[in-house]
Amino acid sequence: MVSSPVPKKAVTLANMNRNLRRAEYAVRGRLAIRADELRKTLLEHEQCPPPPAQALPFTEIISANIGNPQAMDQQPITFFRQVLALVQYPDLLKSEHAAQIFPADARKRAQTLLDHIGSVGAYSHSQGVPYIRQSVANFIARRDGFPSNPKDVFLASGASSAVSSLLRTICDGPDSAVMIPVPQYPLYSATLTLENATAVPYYLEYSAHDIANTVRQAKASGLSLRSIVVINPCNPTGTCLTEAEIKDIITIAADNRLMIIADEVYQTNIYEGEFLSFKRMLRELQRDYPGRYENVELASLHSTSKGMLGECGQRGGYVELVGFDPAVVDQMYKLVSISLCPVVTGQVLTELMVNPPREGDESFPLYKKEYNDIYNSLKKRAFDLYQAFSQMEGVICEEPKGAMYLFPQITIPKAAIQEAARQNMEPDEFYCIQLLEKTGVCVIPGSGFGQQDGTFHFRTTFLAPGHEYIDRMVNFHSQFMDKYR
Amino acid sequence: MVSSPVPKKAVTLANMNRNLRRAEYAVRGRLAIRADELRKTLLEHEQCPPPPAQALPFTEIISANIGNPQAMDQQPITFFRQVLALVQYPDLLKSEHAAQIFPADARKRAQTLLDHIGSVGAYSHSQGVPYIRQSVANFIARRDGFPSNPKDVFLASGASSAVSSLLRTICDGPDSAVMIPVPQYPLYSATLTLENATAVPYYLEYSAHDIANTVRQAKASGLSLRSIVVINPCNPTGTCLTEAEIKDIITIAADNRLMIIADEVYQTNIYEGEFLSFKRMLRELQRDYPGRYENVELASLHSTSKGMLGECGQRGGYVELVGFDPAVVDQMYKLVSISLCPVVTGQVLTELMVNPPREGDESFPLYKKEYNDIYNSLKKRAFDLYQAFSQMEGVICEEPKGAMYLFPQITIPKAAIQEAARQNMEPDEFYCIQLLEKTGVCVIPGSGFGQQDGTFHFRTTFLAPGHEYIDRMVNFHSQFMDKYR
Repeated sequence: MVSSPVPKKAVTLANMNRNLRRAEYAVRGRLAIRADELRKTLLEHEQCPPPPAQALPFTEIISANIGNPQAMDQQPITFFRQVLALVQYPDLLKSEHAAQIFPADARKRAQTLLDHIGSVGAYSHSQGVPYIRQSVANFIARRDGFPSNPKDVFLASGASSAVSSLLRTICDGPDSAVMIPVPQYPLYSATLTLENATAVPYYLEYSAHDIANTVRQAKASGLSLRSIVVINPCNPTGTCLTEAEIKDIITIAADNRLMIIADEVYQTNIYEGEFLSFKRMLRELQRDYPGRYENVELASLHSTSKGMLGECGQRGGYVELVGFDPAVVDQMYKLVSISLCPVVTGQVLTELMVNPPREGDESFPLYKKEYNDIYNSLKKRAFDLYQAFSQMEGVICEEPKGAMYLFPQITIPKAAIQEAARQNMEPDEFYCIQLLEKTGVCVIPGSGFGQQDGTFHFRTTFLAPGHEYIDRMVNFHSQFMDKYR
Repeated sequence: MVSSPVPKKAVTLANMNRNLRRAEYAVRGRLAIRADELRKTLLEHEQCPPPPAQALPFTEIISANIGNPQAMDQQPITFFRQVLALVQYPDLLKSEHAAQIFPADARKRAQTLLDHIGSVGAYSHSQGVPYIRQSVANFIARRDGFPSNPKDVFLASGASSAVSSLLRTICDGPDSAVMIPVPQYPLYSATLTLENATAVPYYLEYSAHDIANTVRQAKASGLSLRSIVVINPCNPTGTCLTEAEIKDIITIAADNRLMIIADEVYQTNIYEGEFLSFKRMLRELQRDYPGRYENVELASLHSTSKGMLGECGQRGGYVELVGFDPAVVDQMYKLVSISLCPVVTGQVLTELMVNPPREGDESFPLYKKEYNDIYNSLKKRAFDLYQAFSQMEGVICEEPKGAMYLFPQITIPKAAIQEAARQNMEPDEFYCIQLLEKTGVCVIPGSGFGQQDGTFHFRTTFLAPGHEYIDRMVNFHSQFMDKYR
């Protein structure tokens, strides 16, 4: 008799969380891990140069896999960092040098925030500092022209954390289903997998009619479909929804009793037209069609990580819950209270984002200049990269409209598809790994976001400065095509 | 035929996450919510004084329900906040006034951290900045006299977040079980409920023999028991384990293949004796008994929220994973990468905590003075409160040894137990609500932490300054006893 091998550890792949094991998160997945290894090799080569034949064909890694502007060359906005420094070290406010270093409005804002917060080292209310929630509500009201209630605002340690709390609250096992766009930011698919809930994909090219059909089919299959996620401006494709498209989605939600999760973290990254919020569109529909949209539930998200701030590491953000069952909101409050409170400096930065210096304030001219410079620089980078993609063989790319990404469709030759299969990879993953190994540019295969069967894409940020990395991509692409065509 | 009522919302109590609905978290539960209401009433009364008969019998709320030192009067440590201000606003380093405001070692530390981090506004590695993880590993090695590997360190947005990631990774449904102490910090029970896993209680008064028996019974009942949680110094009781007790627990873990989760966030809050880490005890056993303890898995936690820092709102902390299956560590890495990275300023504060100014540094004298003042003040407050409890009728309280809490056992008269039942409350909850309504002091009933059947306790922090609130508690208690005796 052969005894089965005894596992040596209490926790192994065999008995750990099976949902986590199944979850996939491409943004920091295989490509990012390989990029880390290459970065380490570059460092080692710097200290101990190898023979030329073993040197890598590039001298730096471009992390175009993740929207992380300040890891590129983007500088933070001065006013925001001044106030953050003052709330971290309030003794500065009393220093005789303070007036020479910090403008009066930065000092005043820091003092006001400290008056309401006490210390940034104290736990705040689990939903966030009441004063800051009021400031967020004021911002939403100004933006939309409709009131907002601070009771409905949950500050969070980044929008990701808000999404995770929200999906955790509303999902209850495999029957509970949430519609997610394809392609999508994989936070949604990964979180639904963690919750052991079901993701029902809808394609971004779909018409309202197609989406409504998908809803009907999902419901007919016995799923308890309860929510639809919309990312606008879109991560990864960079497109923006029109007023009609937003109102169509709200109507589908109203007709089919679906909670809308509107991921609007790129609301200021718009390079054409103006941002239309789901909240405003919902309030307009409620005003124009009394009763018809009364029960719609909307969660809309915002973040300090994107926009012209790019303050990813500070973990600031919020979600506004509109039309929710108050008993469900209470349960979500209990959930966030278990992790005590969102980081308080991230809350402070959220306040600064929604209430920046205004015309007439001492800091306004510099703020405005920094803001516009970042905006123009992002727009230029977006179009530079777009131009390059437009000229690459077999590449189709939409003109950049919003967010921080391009999502070009690529044609992968048959020989490359076969080579990918031989290496046990998706064809677009093979392309991205080759790109990384030859150029040091790290992008993510479209398969990490979802794509129509038989099509191939990759997502790249357009945050990296300069044109040299773009040239490297162009060269790589033509060599890749030459090799496998 | 009566049709069943149609729910008006997509998500309701009836279809939301049932595990969340079941979860309980007393620290920010009923008592804390009532305290918030009373605080609001006090504010309203300030603006518009009511007739004396309607005034509350106190003028402030003492939040003794939560270990939140800086919400009391504890000041942050100057050096830490100086460095945090400088990394938030690096232009300060270039200011001509910098040398007059910031000591040289604070400026140097900030520059070193910035050199390794780049910007605190950029996402870091999901496991935390490598340089900071190395600093944590150095600290652990110095503390324990045994090496530590930065690869094993996961920085986190507070220890709560590390606990949540860890339990999420190791639990897999109702059969997976984790032993938790009774009484315990309800983060553990709440998180296990959220994971739909099973908590197996063991009483803190238990001998090693009793604990081993509990393990055997749980395993015999068919549960997949995989971990044991130990909080040392203990939240809520304030006691510290001896070397023999720690080694007994490690032996039970080795014999029964249990992963140890050692919550050591109060490791510097020790008012008698010295701190003994599970890591050091494990390494000693491994050294002294070759082979016998080879496979033990240990996760040990630390935080910037407690100790002499009390920087709760900054959300810093870490977990060190020792002896884990590397494949499980990879899965936990995937989990934390979905929420991108722990807040970077919290990581910076963690570095400062584990690597504070040393003898000879410019900032050392002030650091040492601030540190000792806080330590002595905490110790004095602990003993003042303990003295008061010792003199209260029917109250048994252990002498404070560690952490930030006392957990007195109270005798509740029969008439009060009946009155509690009439109001649909636990007897200790009734006591705590009465205490809050009469004195403004918010503590948490022992039932929120678990306690031996038929006994009643409450947990209170000893962070509040002064003696006046203690007098209020003493008076309340004697009136309560007089009323119900």
